[in-house]
Amino acid sequence: MQIVSTIIDTTAAKQLVDKYIKSYFKYRITEAAELGQSYVQLWESIENVVLAGGKRLRPFMLLATYQAYNPQGELKDILPAAVAHELIHSAMLIHDDIIDRDLVRYGVQNVSGQYETHYSKFIFDKAELAHMSLSAALLAGDALIADAHMLVKKINRPAELINQAEAILNKEIFEVIGGELLDVEVAFLPKDTINLDTIAKYKTASYSFVGPLTTGAMLAQAPENDINILKELSVIVGIGYQLRDDLIGVFGNETITGKSNTSDIKEGKRTYLVEKFEQLATPQQSENFFGVFRHPNAGEEEIALARNLLIETGARAAVEDLVEQKRLKALEKVSALSLSDEAKQLYIILIEQSLNREM
Amino acid sequence: MQIVSTIIDTTAAKQLVDKYIKSYFKYRITEAAELGQSYVQLWESIENVVLAGGKRLRPFMLLATYQAYNPQGELKDILPAAVAHELIHSAMLIHDDIIDRDLVRYGVQNVSGQYETHYSKFIFDKAELAHMSLSAALLAGDALIADAHMLVKKINRPAELINQAEAILNKEIFEVIGGELLDVEVAFLPKDTINLDTIAKYKTASYSFVGPLTTGAMLAQAPENDINILKELSVIVGIGYQLRDDLIGVFGNETITGKSNTSDIKEGKRTYLVEKFEQLATPQQSENFFGVFRHPNAGEEEIALARNLLIETGARAAVEDLVEQKRLKALEKVSALSLSDEAKQLYIILIEQSLNREM
Repeated sequence: MQIVSTIIDTTAAKQLVDKYIKSYFKYRITEAAELGQSYVQLWESIENVVLAGGKRLRPFMLLATYQAYNPQGELKDILPAAVAHELIHSAMLIHDDIIDRDLVRYGVQNVSGQYETHYSKFIFDKAELAHMSLSAALLAGDALIADAHMLVKKINRPAELINQAEAILNKEIFEVIGGELLDVEVAFLPKDTINLDTIAKYKTASYSFVGPLTTGAMLAQAPENDINILKELSVIVGIGYQLRDDLIGVFGNETITGKSNTSDIKEGKRTYLVEKFEQLATPQQSENFFGVFRHPNAGEEEIALARNLLIETGARAAVEDLVEQKRLKALEKVSALSLSDEAKQLYIILIEQSLNREM
Repeated sequence: MQIVSTIIDTTAAKQLVDKYIKSYFKYRITEAAELGQSYVQLWESIENVVLAGGKRLRPFMLLATYQAYNPQGELKDILPAAVAHELIHSAMLIHDDIIDRDLVRYGVQNVSGQYETHYSKFIFDKAELAHMSLSAALLAGDALIADAHMLVKKINRPAELINQAEAILNKEIFEVIGGELLDVEVAFLPKDTINLDTIAKYKTASYSFVGPLTTGAMLAQAPENDINILKELSVIVGIGYQLRDDLIGVFGNETITGKSNTSDIKEGKRTYLVEKFEQLATPQQSENFFGVFRHPNAGEEEIALARNLLIETGARAAVEDLVEQKRLKALEKVSALSLSDEAKQLYIILIEQSLNREM
């Protein structure tokens, strides 16, 4: 996502954030050397993944919001809080990859993947190798979670605001962990026990939107009313983002989105699209769809059939309509902010980019 | 370990700590209810394990040290920092159990164990069930790591001291994660790459002794020199504790220690005892020992043979001698503290109990 706002563009934010991230890893790798080469290697494997990808969207939104409400403020004063959000994001991806048993992230080996290569010189049993590699990745994620709190403390704002920033971060972590749990369980728990909006709100919206936006605003001492609006806006955008993501996971162009457009169907992921389909499908359509859905070996033709069923039943249109509703609701929230029209552009672009991501 | 010091006894400390832990879980369970019953269940499963066992030794040592250096101080002022150390301990046990694929802790089902029971109603593939249960436990540990930092912030001491307490906690977590990594790798990496003292220092001493003692002393504003001595004392006791633990793991009475006296040999755990054995054994003794060591199906007779070899070669005596050296060195450190003889008793008892644990 390329957001060029009048305040700070994503490229400038990414440079600032990446510079800080590099100095953070340099510090940690030096400290790790006291324990030995093994621990250095763990930190290097984390750094490899973190630097390989990521648009630093969360730090960007935190920094941009801070400047929107405090145009004279220095970004470097609050940069560590922005980076803390990237660390939480990285920790969650590392642990999410353990849960999903993925070995690749951003087109490079993730922590587990790097450890499979490393440990394969010493462990010859495949299952044991996989388990030990996951164990290393488990510890890698732990280290980042602990450090996120530490980074927030390093910002240059009054103690009371630092405390609030830490409290927000803690709440985000609590919520994303709960969201992640629900997302794990939605695959196998009875359908009626889990609500997709709840998952999107806690797994996606909380630490990706609510946390960065409210932290930035709070640190800039934005009006209470604006902070509340940003919170509501974030939940709407977060859910809209997930809705769009579900569309991309089936109808997206892999070359553009970088995301498989078959695995959601093959893995049988319970998405908004599938939920809508179930509400709209005839018994015959349903039978045809579930003859493909959750069949890991489904071929291109079968997937195409499933896609058509999602269109025919109106499930796709219904989800697109939901995204549009979220977009309008989000824009309404933006108009209620006490910012100048120029500053509001930041959020308008954020909404358009999140809810109209190219697919 | 039952320490009755003139300052505060372990029973009183445990009551205080347990009361706080219960109120913490009550708070978290209420918050989790906003996300739904699934998340409540995760928190209840954590609470079940935390309340099932644990002697709260780390909180006790933190509280007792605080009182030793600040006899007028109120324990409730710093109680959350003491509990934070218990949370880190619990998080590490939960993640350690994932790494070791254990399902029981303190004689009850651990988090993974409880989830195996819960998820078995929905997941029928054994490997999948195990993986999903581990995933829940992974998230459980994450939640506690994040909250440990948050608890430290709740103490009632000047901001500067709170910051220092958080910095110590962060360092402990960084170190225990490194120690845990080394402990995982010692099982299969080439022998010369890992030093057992380094593992004991970072996996055991750091968060179990160094952290609690230095945090308690720092919060009481103890003299800098004493804090340094407590740090050195902690590393010595931590390594001594591990040495004793290795003896218990082979020669202990399971009924007394609650710890298997055969699994270290069967699993082929690389301990101080084995290291000493390798230095002292003849090729014939070595051949006999390694005919049993790391053989999961070794019988009682074979284990007895291995035990005898550890005695015959003098490996057991050498490790016992090392423990005694640590004990004397630790007592020397205690004598250098600026405390009254009465207050010093606390550390003398700690040393005796840690390094002479019944076996």
